[in-house]
Amino acid sequence: MSQTVAFQGEKGAFSEAAAFAYWGNHITLHPCRTFKDVFQALQNKTVDYGIIPIENSLTGSIHQNIDLALDFHHYIVGEIILRIQHNLLVAKGVKLSNIKKVVSHPQALMQCSNFLESLEGVECLPMYDTAGSAQFISKNKPKDHAAIASLQASKDYDLHVIKKDIENNKQNYTRFLIISREQTFPSKDPKTSVVFSTKDIPGALFKSLSVFALRDINLLKIESRPWQKGPWKYWFYLDFEGSMKDEACKKAIGHLEEITAFLKILGSYSKGRIIESN
Amino acid sequence: MSQTVAFQGEKGAFSEAAAFAYWGNHITLHPCRTFKDVFQALQNKTVDYGIIPIENSLTGSIHQNIDLALDFHHYIVGEIILRIQHNLLVAKGVKLSNIKKVVSHPQALMQCSNFLESLEGVECLPMYDTAGSAQFISKNKPKDHAAIASLQASKDYDLHVIKKDIENNKQNYTRFLIISREQTFPSKDPKTSVVFSTKDIPGALFKSLSVFALRDINLLKIESRPWQKGPWKYWFYLDFEGSMKDEACKKAIGHLEEITAFLKILGSYSKGRIIESN
Repeated sequence: MSQTVAFQGEKGAFSEAAAFAYWGNHITLHPCRTFKDVFQALQNKTVDYGIIPIENSLTGSIHQNIDLALDFHHYIVGEIILRIQHNLLVAKGVKLSNIKKVVSHPQALMQCSNFLESLEGVECLPMYDTAGSAQFISKNKPKDHAAIASLQASKDYDLHVIKKDIENNKQNYTRFLIISREQTFPSKDPKTSVVFSTKDIPGALFKSLSVFALRDINLLKIESRPWQKGPWKYWFYLDFEGSMKDEACKKAIGHLEEITAFLKILGSYSKGRIIESN
Repeated sequence: MSQTVAFQGEKGAFSEAAAFAYWGNHITLHPCRTFKDVFQALQNKTVDYGIIPIENSLTGSIHQNIDLALDFHHYIVGEIILRIQHNLLVAKGVKLSNIKKVVSHPQALMQCSNFLESLEGVECLPMYDTAGSAQFISKNKPKDHAAIASLQASKDYDLHVIKKDIENNKQNYTRFLIISREQTFPSKDPKTSVVFSTKDIPGALFKSLSVFALRDINLLKIESRPWQKGPWKYWFYLDFEGSMKDEACKKAIGHLEEITAFLKILGSYSKGRIIESN
């Protein structure tokens, strides 16, 4: 039986492309309406894994998914980084010169503004998501409309790719995490994600980071955020090199527990490779 | 002559509400199409100030504006934190029971999903932005449409507020920064924002933070981000308590320069107060 994977969005979403890149094409995908539904489907044992975006290089961390990782008791077991590439998709037979209207998510339309401005007299119409705009073209087959969406969406909805890579900024990456009910330990290129809040003592963050520096453990990411439940506290999201199987990492975390008011280990996993979405 | 302030968006955008809350109603606003246009208007001396969102409590940092702060040579001179409250707006005479369609930015529609699901059989239509959806209602006066937008938009477009505070999550805050061509120093509640990248030496981040810890300077925010121009380098965005007029802060920054490969002081300013948008 193939593995089942929950993701937020519809067929043709970038999360779907990330899932196929991570596992291959043999998986069974379970589209969910919201990110919370992804975590819930995993908890209900409806699926074996979930895949969620956690950070985009242009728009920042997706805090909502960090909050959900704190609320649910799942583990991060993998990572993959997808370069977001946008494409102009049309129904078969439609030419670039026929296009009068372009539909997509407002963010995708903005991310392709240079290309869209080069098409004279073309009107942009916002839609809920990029995949939904591809579905719209596939269903209605308009002669003068195009959608902006992923290459995956062109396959899912049998559309013609009239122009590839139309995004303004080529440095647009989304980092996805794989979540599971079972904890695993990576065999190579390990990293570990933790969330903690410090006690209200002077230099608390500095002391927290010293537990890693003293053991020559490299930090890969750090981000502070005001604690949602009380306006004056902060929590920290930290990625470091190493696995919770390593003696040095176990000792560092033991040491960190002495300093923090709250600490949760989200998981140890192999560093994700970077893949192209086209 | 009244001060002129550039913001991204149209009349009725949350940035406009933040500007009025910061300066009062006597300012002259200069709406811009993009964030870059805000920085550019300030550089061209078209305006005296700019106001830009830098961080939202649900969706994270707006990296694009940090990038622009690095590219342009402006200073941060102020801060204000706006609680994002959404409202259902209609043309005069339209009742809740008449509404068949609700228009707004997809993110605003999602942030009000609980309320929208309570309205049976109502269809949601995405638009470019919340202010644009209010403008649409004002222009076309449809008998069965409502928009989701700010209270400011209801004033700007003379619409009736049929229901206030329809957002799912009340902990939705956006932090705005005020930018100017001239550097200033705050007289009370000072904080300073800096961006730096560390040299490729072991424990570089730990050493960078030690310059503040050794001087009992409190950190208010820290965030790492992969450097756009080279995939393996990181930069750090840091807010700390104090002003660049303070001896301890000047010494800490002098010390930090020894460790960093790149350092830019974005400005010292008074910590912003939190205001309601309704």
